[in-house]
Amino acid sequence: MPLKKVAVIMGSKSDLPVVLGAIQTLREMDIPYEAHVMSAHRTPEKAADFAVGAMDNGFGVIIAAAGKAAHLAGVLAGHTTLPVIGIPIKSTSLDGLDALLATVQMPSGVPVATVAIDGAKNAALLAAQILALSDSRIAGLLKDKKKKMAQGVLTADEKLQAELETL
Amino acid sequence: MPLKKVAVIMGSKSDLPVVLGAIQTLREMDIPYEAHVMSAHRTPEKAADFAVGAMDNGFGVIIAAAGKAAHLAGVLAGHTTLPVIGIPIKSTSLDGLDALLATVQMPSGVPVATVAIDGAKNAALLAAQILALSDSRIAGLLKDKKKKMAQGVLTADEKLQAELETL
Amino acid sequence: MPLKKVAVIMGSKSDLPVVLGAIQTLREMDIPYEAHVMSAHRTPEKAADFAVGAMDNGFGVIIAAAGKAAHLAGVLAGHTTLPVIGIPIKSTSLDGLDALLATVQMPSGVPVATVAIDGAKNAALLAAQILALSDSRIAGLLKDKKKKMAQGVLTADEKLQAELETL
Amino acid sequence: MPLKKVAVIMGSKSDLPVVLGAIQTLREMDIPYEAHVMSAHRTPEKAADFAVGAMDNGFGVIIAAAGKAAHLAGVLAGHTTLPVIGIPIKSTSLDGLDALLATVQMPSGVPVATVAIDGAKNAALLAAQILALSDSRIAGLLKDKKKKMAQGVLTADEKLQAELETL
Amino acid sequence: MPLKKVAVIMGSKSDLPVVLGAIQTLREMDIPYEAHVMSAHRTPEKAADFAVGAMDNGFGVIIAAAGKAAHLAGVLAGHTTLPVIGIPIKSTSLDGLDALLATVQMPSGVPVATVAIDGAKNAALLAAQILALSDSRIAGLLKDKKKKMAQGVLTADEKLQAELETL
Amino acid sequence: MPLKKVAVIMGSKSDLPVVLGAIQTLREMDIPYEAHVMSAHRTPEKAADFAVGAMDNGFGVIIAAAGKAAHLAGVLAGHTTLPVIGIPIKSTSLDGLDALLATVQMPSGVPVATVAIDGAKNAALLAAQILALSDSRIAGLLKDKKKKMAQGVLTADEKLQAELETL
Amino acid sequence: MPLKKVAVIMGSKSDLPVVLGAIQTLREMDIPYEAHVMSAHRTPEKAADFAVGAMDNGFGVIIAAAGKAAHLAGVLAGHTTLPVIGIPIKSTSLDGLDALLATVQMPSGVPVATVAIDGAKNAALLAAQILALSDSRIAGLLKDKKKKMAQGVLTADEKLQAELETL
Amino acid sequence: MPLKKVAVIMGSKSDLPVVLGAIQTLREMDIPYEAHVMSAHRTPEKAADFAVGAMDNGFGVIIAAAGKAAHLAGVLAGHTTLPVIGIPIKSTSLDGLDALLATVQMPSGVPVATVAIDGAKNAALLAAQILALSDSRIAGLLKDKKKKMAQGVLTADEKLQAELETL
Repeated sequence: MPLKKVAVIMGSKSDLPVVLGAIQTLREMDIPYEAHVMSAHRTPEKAADFAVGAMDNGFGVIIAAAGKAAHLAGVLAGHTTLPVIGIPIKSTSLDGLDALLATVQMPSGVPVATVAIDGAKNAALLAAQILALSDSRIAGLLKDKKKKMAQGVLTADEKLQAELETL
Repeated sequence: MPLKKVAVIMGSKSDLPVVLGAIQTLREMDIPYEAHVMSAHRTPEKAADFAVGAMDNGFGVIIAAAGKAAHLAGVLAGHTTLPVIGIPIKSTSLDGLDALLATVQMPSGVPVATVAIDGAKNAALLAAQILALSDSRIAGLLKDKKKKMAQGVLTADEKLQAELETL
Repeated sequence: MPLKKVAVIMGSKSDLPVVLGAIQTLREMDIPYEAHVMSAHRTPEKAADFAVGAMDNGFGVIIAAAGKAAHLAGVLAGHTTLPVIGIPIKSTSLDGLDALLATVQMPSGVPVATVAIDGAKNAALLAAQILALSDSRIAGLLKDKKKKMAQGVLTADEKLQAELETL
Repeated sequence: MPLKKVAVIMGSKSDLPVVLGAIQTLREMDIPYEAHVMSAHRTPEKAADFAVGAMDNGFGVIIAAAGKAAHLAGVLAGHTTLPVIGIPIKSTSLDGLDALLATVQMPSGVPVATVAIDGAKNAALLAAQILALSDSRIAGLLKDKKKKMAQGVLTADEKLQAELETL
Repeated sequence: MPLKKVAVIMGSKSDLPVVLGAIQTLREMDIPYEAHVMSAHRTPEKAADFAVGAMDNGFGVIIAAAGKAAHLAGVLAGHTTLPVIGIPIKSTSLDGLDALLATVQMPSGVPVATVAIDGAKNAALLAAQILALSDSRIAGLLKDKKKKMAQGVLTADEKLQAELETL
Repeated sequence: MPLKKVAVIMGSKSDLPVVLGAIQTLREMDIPYEAHVMSAHRTPEKAADFAVGAMDNGFGVIIAAAGKAAHLAGVLAGHTTLPVIGIPIKSTSLDGLDALLATVQMPSGVPVATVAIDGAKNAALLAAQILALSDSRIAGLLKDKKKKMAQGVLTADEKLQAELETL
Repeated sequence: MPLKKVAVIMGSKSDLPVVLGAIQTLREMDIPYEAHVMSAHRTPEKAADFAVGAMDNGFGVIIAAAGKAAHLAGVLAGHTTLPVIGIPIKSTSLDGLDALLATVQMPSGVPVATVAIDGAKNAALLAAQILALSDSRIAGLLKDKKKKMAQGVLTADEKLQAELETL
Repeated sequence: MPLKKVAVIMGSKSDLPVVLGAIQTLREMDIPYEAHVMSAHRTPEKAADFAVGAMDNGFGVIIAAAGKAAHLAGVLAGHTTLPVIGIPIKSTSLDGLDALLATVQMPSGVPVATVAIDGAKNAALLAAQILALSDSRIAGLLKDKKKKMAQGVLTADEKLQAELETL
């Protein structure tokens, strides 16, 4: 069975600087993906069609990023039974709280797996964790990443010790 | 030109006790309306179809009530150029703040006219104000209501004076 | 019947950079408007007089923008039965939450149609949607705008695809 | 010079249970007062007239209590140079935060002396402190009250010691 | 390949009334699960051991529910590369905001798939969606559930129409 | 009777840029004042002594500005029956909400007249309004200021009209 | 060296039901304590005197509980170099957020060790942890408590397993 | 008995600019310390091992700084009976509220002594206050610091007086 693709949908192209964190993480892990600009409010039919067809089109997980009254992830989740991951995007007011609540507080029956405000990299890692359940290559990569991440902390601690000596 | 109808859409039938405030206000003013349960997440196609066809089906204003990550008003607004009024419904956590932000913080291009949390009566009055621009009967009723409302405050003040005498 | 005018009222001239978003949108659609600086607190009589006379002076919708304890929209709404649209303006503290709550949480009987924090363009679109109920030219313009907006998303998506190829 | 009166204005008679805390405190101190129901939104002219005439009608301080988008204190303050004290009233959603921000975040030039949410007794004490600047009887009463309040804490502490012995 | 199990971990047995929503949903779908009380703070070794061994012990997804400074989901996620779903539990103060932020705002590298405050049923559905990627029986059940959910909304709408006739 | 002085107390000299708004307003109105740096936490005895002696030392109103867990106004109010006006100062986190709540939410018996976050000018105007009750010169100045403020809005509106013509 | 005492200070006797959690925990561990009602605002001198003398009077830690604009812990901390632990008390509005921010956001130089809203038991445990640094009996008790707490979670888990079998 | 060490743990080396405030304060007071980068989520075993062994390794107090869903202090506290001080770090969204709630709202049984957002210096002072209970040198230093701090306020006040003369 070929690896399922990850869809990375953003509500506006202005979200790309944040969403790149997800795209680059997927690319690093050689996870097939498609990224699209699609709006729950400006192109609702396109968004609906995409979500309705996502499973048949080879997608396994949908990541959706949006700010303010962030409906994108919820709207996509309304049209599919694939897992949908929501990234609340911080915009110019309310410091991201609006997007967080609009993404996470979904009604019973239609979950959105919400990550931190602007947490694009974690959205991709979560997608990878989901796909890894049936893909040992990705499972291995995630374990490697976890080790490297731990190693990075150890290295940072060593650097800190060196810096402290110079105080 | 016959008077346009007001659509009163609620995301869940459990919202009815609040939404009745809008329905009763419309009925008092003899404004034609239809009320429906429709969900942005559970029946997205039905909601989209309703909004797409609303103008041709004789509606002039859409009122939408939803709680939590309240996407209903925004989703309907994405499918129509009719004015959409959003009522954020208070649910069991966060005291209505989630529904308020998810309703009001709409992206540029797709407005939702948001009223107060659980502000169903005001949603109906706002719909009436909109319809009154081309309907002198409703315009008259609104002026009457405004006078009665003011009179109600005066009466309340008189009662207060009487109560204060008994202190 | 000539098209009714839109009033664009701001609480302080310092709100103009945000409010211009509404003015420009109205101008693009050739909707007649008047814009004024008027304060619920500093020129309360002028604001009251304006609202009281607005209907007779040919206005169909009032847009009011104010920050902090944003009373302007509510005060105008207290003096008229015209639909009043409130734009909460973000100021130097609390990230716009104060203006949002002071605008939207209106008591029963006096609605304010609240848009997003700094959502001036949407305020103008909402005014246009209201006027469009009895003006087919504006109705047509709104449908065009909605299509162009959707087209803009599609174009943004195409650009995204091109950029992704260069990663 | 006769003692100036305190006006106690509430936006709705439903605020009376809270506002009674102010009325009773004024009565205890024999401070002349008038209490009225008056609404910034439902009876704006009456509220404006009251504030405009308050100084000439013998008032020295105005206390205004309102909930939700609490504009009452601010609107009164816009029409007078008397000190205006605002009591934010907690209503059924947002736990009083809306009324607090709508009362306290006044723009430059028009202060409202805001007390705690539902802080009616403190509003009356503040009014008394203001009047006491030119009335030695009230000044004396306030000092007495302060002493009794301190004594009340000491008594509470004694009761606590007794209760602790029974643990 | 046998179906992977879902772990349902709660930080305190007092969370069970909420968490039952997840357990019952898993049982309805015949998804194998284990439920445990385990605390990030009171039994940290047990929690760590569980998470470290979860993959080898046949688990595919971990659901973790906790209130207040809800660390449970994050701590489990630190010890495994399995997808971890967090349910923020509303407790006696702050209306669930604390648990939501403590669950969702995870640092880069360690995602937690957060659902709504007290959103236990959605946590189970999300787990099912994840498992359904490699299990067609669950995929089918989810599609059935989605249809039934939509049908439930239609039925509610029919009931509403009947009730409206009696007004 | 000579005019009573206004005390302007700030918790830290770093608050001066904001507090200058109060000082300059008092100077414009020729209201006698003293300004001091005094801390509820760092110099509690000095703050207590100041408040205890303020009435005898000729002060009529105390303005206190502090940020974060802003206790200064409340502590001073605990030691005097003079009216105390609190200015919550915005600091580097939480956007001023902490100082606002720590200033305004005073317990029953000890009011603090709270103005907006960073609302130093309004604190001075409120002090002037209080003193004006027994000083006709200040009362006159306040009326003049109110007129000038209104005139300033009218002038701003005229400028706006000129700018709009150039659009 | 005899064991130092813990002071448990509450701002109002109405806080006792919450504060009892601290008192009972100290009693269970046979840690000497005194509990008092004392108010930063109503009995400021008494509070200051207590804090100034606390070290000489044999106290090692001060626990202070207060609600709303909770200044008590901060005021005590201003008068002593003993560690001061603050318990923010939830009152009738704002769900404890006001007391939390007023307790924890202390300025540089005067720390308050803040525990959770209504977290009285934890305040006592923290005091015990502090005293345990120089008292091996308390250190031992804390280790025992930690084990029992872990055991309690295991027991709860066993009960859960039994209950799950009956579903 | 030699003086116990203070551990200063930060969740990420990017927290160092804030945490330096704690390190420098400890160095000024010649309090032995170790500083480390350690993550509750990225190096959970290392963090657990550190906390488990901290008491035997000569530590008396642990300071932990972390941002966002700040679990570090709580996780360390789960593994030790030493007092743990938490510094919530402000990150790029939500202005530090997330870290504050995730640090302070600990469940019963596992306290974290929380200081202000970014309150690193106060964390060190609190650690010093704790150690001072059995170390008279530190006790003396803290009293000196308190005096210097008060003197600093007096000096600031003198500077203010000089500046006011130049206005």
